[in-house]
Amino acid sequence: MKLKMMYSFLNADIGLIEKELEATVQAEHPLLRQAGVELLQAGGKRLRPVFVLLAGKFGEYDINRIKHVAVALELIHMASLVHDDVIDNAELRRGRQTIKAKYDNKIAMYTGDFLFARALALMTKLENPVAHKILSHTMVELCIGEIEQIKDKYNFNQDLRTYLRRIKRKTALLIAVSCQLGAIGANASEDIQKKLYLFGYYVGMSFQITDDILDFTATEEQLGKPAGSDLLQGNITLPVLLALKNLEIRESISAITKDSTESDIRPIIDMIKTSSSIEKSFELSNLYLNKAFKILEELPNNKTKTALNNIAKFIGKRKF
Amino acid sequence: MKLKMMYSFLNADIGLIEKELEATVQAEHPLLRQAGVELLQAGGKRLRPVFVLLAGKFGEYDINRIKHVAVALELIHMASLVHDDVIDNAELRRGRQTIKAKYDNKIAMYTGDFLFARALALMTKLENPVAHKILSHTMVELCIGEIEQIKDKYNFNQDLRTYLRRIKRKTALLIAVSCQLGAIGANASEDIQKKLYLFGYYVGMSFQITDDILDFTATEEQLGKPAGSDLLQGNITLPVLLALKNLEIRESISAITKDSTESDIRPIIDMIKTSSSIEKSFELSNLYLNKAFKILEELPNNKTKTALNNIAKFIGKRKF
Repeated sequence: MKLKMMYSFLNADIGLIEKELEATVQAEHPLLRQAGVELLQAGGKRLRPVFVLLAGKFGEYDINRIKHVAVALELIHMASLVHDDVIDNAELRRGRQTIKAKYDNKIAMYTGDFLFARALALMTKLENPVAHKILSHTMVELCIGEIEQIKDKYNFNQDLRTYLRRIKRKTALLIAVSCQLGAIGANASEDIQKKLYLFGYYVGMSFQITDDILDFTATEEQLGKPAGSDLLQGNITLPVLLALKNLEIRESISAITKDSTESDIRPIIDMIKTSSSIEKSFELSNLYLNKAFKILEELPNNKTKTALNNIAKFIGKRKF
Repeated sequence: MKLKMMYSFLNADIGLIEKELEATVQAEHPLLRQAGVELLQAGGKRLRPVFVLLAGKFGEYDINRIKHVAVALELIHMASLVHDDVIDNAELRRGRQTIKAKYDNKIAMYTGDFLFARALALMTKLENPVAHKILSHTMVELCIGEIEQIKDKYNFNQDLRTYLRRIKRKTALLIAVSCQLGAIGANASEDIQKKLYLFGYYVGMSFQITDDILDFTATEEQLGKPAGSDLLQGNITLPVLLALKNLEIRESISAITKDSTESDIRPIIDMIKTSSSIEKSFELSNLYLNKAFKILEELPNNKTKTALNNIAKFIGKRKF
């Protein structure tokens, strides 16, 4: 089943979110508008808005209220990608030139700032101080996560906890908060808010681990960027961390520096791909996924719950 | 009279703001903490917090409430300076190495992001949705201002309106909003909020014009960075715009490109310094200042009003 088929009952509302996203980036400055439109056209799964809307279905769902939350979350996600690409010197994302590649680091920096600021401005349409508090604190954590990622590059002595804390800040938190704010935006009970937050957190952890695996196992065509980019940029992801336990592979990995070229790293990527660390990474991803399924069991039965269940399954099994 | 003497009745509260600023940047990640502490130690006039507190005196002044607004405004100012230094490739600010110089552009980008996010998180302690709305919209405008500044570099055909709009976004808006949010944080009447906003706007315009003049007339020691930095970076400020009306100077200025060196530009700076454009720039600065004084006349008489009056005078006359 295709991802979009899992929540086809939301089709009209997701179309509206897309239009709102366009309107939000179009209303302003020519260069920012162009950068924003290009970012939107590059596509993406719009997972965060989908989680916001689905979470909202557990409360008093009002699309005209909750749409602001959905758009804000996607804008924050987009902003963090734009700033990420500056950090990673990334030329391509989703098969397209990144903002930093097409313009420069400086334009990318302010495009990101602008999207962050627009997101927070949008959230003020929801007159709930708790929502702002959550969103701005999430941004603080996102920034810390990014700084951590820079600091931990090429550090082959980091432990699993460091990795998990980093992907929590980098990915899981924003998905958790998408679910939580969806519930808050629809005035769902606090119990449901908490459960949806946890569901999003577990799904987010599984999602990022899968992403980190796919960076090794998927093709350049599937990824929209060269495979093995993470390791080439010095990012130590779960498959690398687990492969470091194999002394032979450890020796090769530890020799990687900022000056390593793609051809230096290619054989190491192959070693990791054929090691057991890929399978073990999938095991940890599944562990999180099962926690997500378990939380879902505590939520009321409805088609939204089925959708969340299917999305979680999809995320665990996706090939790119 | 020294600036600080003009509002000595706020001394204790300003000391508290300084402590809160330290606590805000210290609570987190080691690298961010270090960058934050260095930024604070570099000093600065803390003009925005002072305006917040003074504006608050026109309402129900409660330092434990209004301090969050004051700290948030200074954090946003600091964040914008950090991102500015990335844009301008600035090595020095206030006589110290910039974050981008000491670390790199990437660390500077996330330090700025982090400070922005902390500022918005702090504002949520004020449970007033209007305050968030104003602050996040101000951030949007700040970003547009920065992008405009990048776009307008080395554009010698821009008009006065373009310059004024740019310095409004870059400087005047944040000072206006400091006054406005100070009044809002103290539940002052809407009429007083509006008047204080306008006062801040006029003072901010005058302040930035003076800043742009001082970049030509002050010494490197006074500025804490080389004189003429603006023009060297391609930023067309008011003295340049006015000097462009002199055909002889125009010819020299128009020849400036990204590849111009300091020694290419030094004689042009001297031409501008000795032209009438400095005096004419002061005239426009004074025009804004007089508008600020006029607005003050409409506010109730008290020592706070005297302080605002003196600060405005100081800003108009300051030598660095």
